[in-house]
Amino acid sequence: MSFLSKRRVEFGDTDMAGIMHFANFFRFMESAELDLLHSIGLSVHWRDGPVKWGFPRVSTSCDFTKPARFEDVLTIAVTIEKLGAKSVAYRFDFTNQRGEAIAVGRITTVFCRSDGPEHLESVEMPATIREKLSRAA
Amino acid sequence: MSFLSKRRVEFGDTDMAGIMHFANFFRFMESAELDLLHSIGLSVHWRDGPVKWGFPRVSTSCDFTKPARFEDVLTIAVTIEKLGAKSVAYRFDFTNQRGEAIAVGRITTVFCRSDGPEHLESVEMPATIREKLSRAA
Amino acid sequence: MSFLSKRRVEFGDTDMAGIMHFANFFRFMESAELDLLHSIGLSVHWRDGPVKWGFPRVSTSCDFTKPARFEDVLTIAVTIEKLGAKSVAYRFDFTNQRGEAIAVGRITTVFCRSDGPEHLESVEMPATIREKLSRAA
Amino acid sequence: MSFLSKRRVEFGDTDMAGIMHFANFFRFMESAELDLLHSIGLSVHWRDGPVKWGFPRVSTSCDFTKPARFEDVLTIAVTIEKLGAKSVAYRFDFTNQRGEAIAVGRITTVFCRSDGPEHLESVEMPATIREKLSRAA
Repeated sequence: MSFLSKRRVEFGDTDMAGIMHFANFFRFMESAELDLLHSIGLSVHWRDGPVKWGFPRVSTSCDFTKPARFEDVLTIAVTIEKLGAKSVAYRFDFTNQRGEAIAVGRITTVFCRSDGPEHLESVEMPATIREKLSRAA
Repeated sequence: MSFLSKRRVEFGDTDMAGIMHFANFFRFMESAELDLLHSIGLSVHWRDGPVKWGFPRVSTSCDFTKPARFEDVLTIAVTIEKLGAKSVAYRFDFTNQRGEAIAVGRITTVFCRSDGPEHLESVEMPATIREKLSRAA
Repeated sequence: MSFLSKRRVEFGDTDMAGIMHFANFFRFMESAELDLLHSIGLSVHWRDGPVKWGFPRVSTSCDFTKPARFEDVLTIAVTIEKLGAKSVAYRFDFTNQRGEAIAVGRITTVFCRSDGPEHLESVEMPATIREKLSRAA
Repeated sequence: MSFLSKRRVEFGDTDMAGIMHFANFFRFMESAELDLLHSIGLSVHWRDGPVKWGFPRVSTSCDFTKPARFEDVLTIAVTIEKLGAKSVAYRFDFTNQRGEAIAVGRITTVFCRSDGPEHLESVEMPATIREKLSRAA
């Protein structure tokens, strides 16, 4: 089961090779992840008084098959590949408007609590959050 | 009197027109501003316990004369054009390694205090900060 | 008469001050400009055999009133302020989902022809292009 | 044997979590790769009349250990892990100014020839290029 998100390749997303710069695929993955999280009432970062909660990234990768070009509208199919006690592993399948496979990316995030600057600690997800993610998986 | 900062145009700074994307000039201005501030023992953003201090931008502009290209090493001459009680107005003259004028940018920043998220208030600069900036002007 | 475009502030658009980084406003202006151009059958950059046509930027500015924050959905009202023989001057009014004015930006572009790398020459817009822009103005 | 490159974390490289945004690690890898290529008289992209040569990315990854923060000066140790007939696989070890390991990234690039827009074809590296890379490996 995949969640679908769409995003257009902007002029500023390209580089002088005439294609989307590879680092921007990670920004596209992040906005697709947020679309999925919004669809189940969650986010990647929020604040509860002085405490910040969120899903920082611990690992990520991307394999590129075909270039994405200016004005392409990419469909990003997001799949939760693994849901742990503290972590979520996503897979992102990019296709363009002609249905061609463009790239496959992955992000593993870990649920974290921050009590202030310089503090960041991974913690188990509360049941309510895990349940929502689990229904999306 | 100008302060000189240098920065190379990276591959990822270009766009499909084969030149540096215009939005990146503002990132180059910001790193040149930081170089100037570091040279006088200041920064654009710091924390003192729970309070954050910094110089958010209130206005900025850039006029482009010639394109900057991949691997160009730009010299950015930073001049403080106006130093107010709360604000600093910078001018940035970009030239490339052949001495050609590329662009002229401007940023006006205002000294601000933030006591927490959602709070941001412009305040007068302490004498020590104003003095340092005044020597650089 | 304004053309309306919407874009969400992504996590990666923010900086450590907790607000959208100022350079990203220029990326938002560019995608709003493209939305307007698409709506009248144009673009900011296209190719006709070996010749590239487009609207490089010659000047831009932005005044910031209130911060844009993560997950804000900004409405960008695009107005053509001046349509010359070779140039188009746009104004961008940013508001957030609560209707608050966030920023006002401007971009002046010049119609250009490029016959190859290192070549870029401003030229008069063909009547068909000028007419389309003129109806949007 | 590693090649060392340094780059400072700029204000605009951070996100609202107060740390360098993860997508920017890929930009830092690319500038470190360029530093290595420059040191042996090569680049990632160049033009020979109408033909473009370069090293587009086919795969990349990054594992994050500790956050990189604003004003950190990162040392990026670049190692060529594998040199094929057409491809180069790099490893990037990021440490901060306190010697702490921050992240480990990888990029695999493939030598390509482009005869025009929409054309991109992987080809074997000429002996002179392979030899230079081989001495750096």
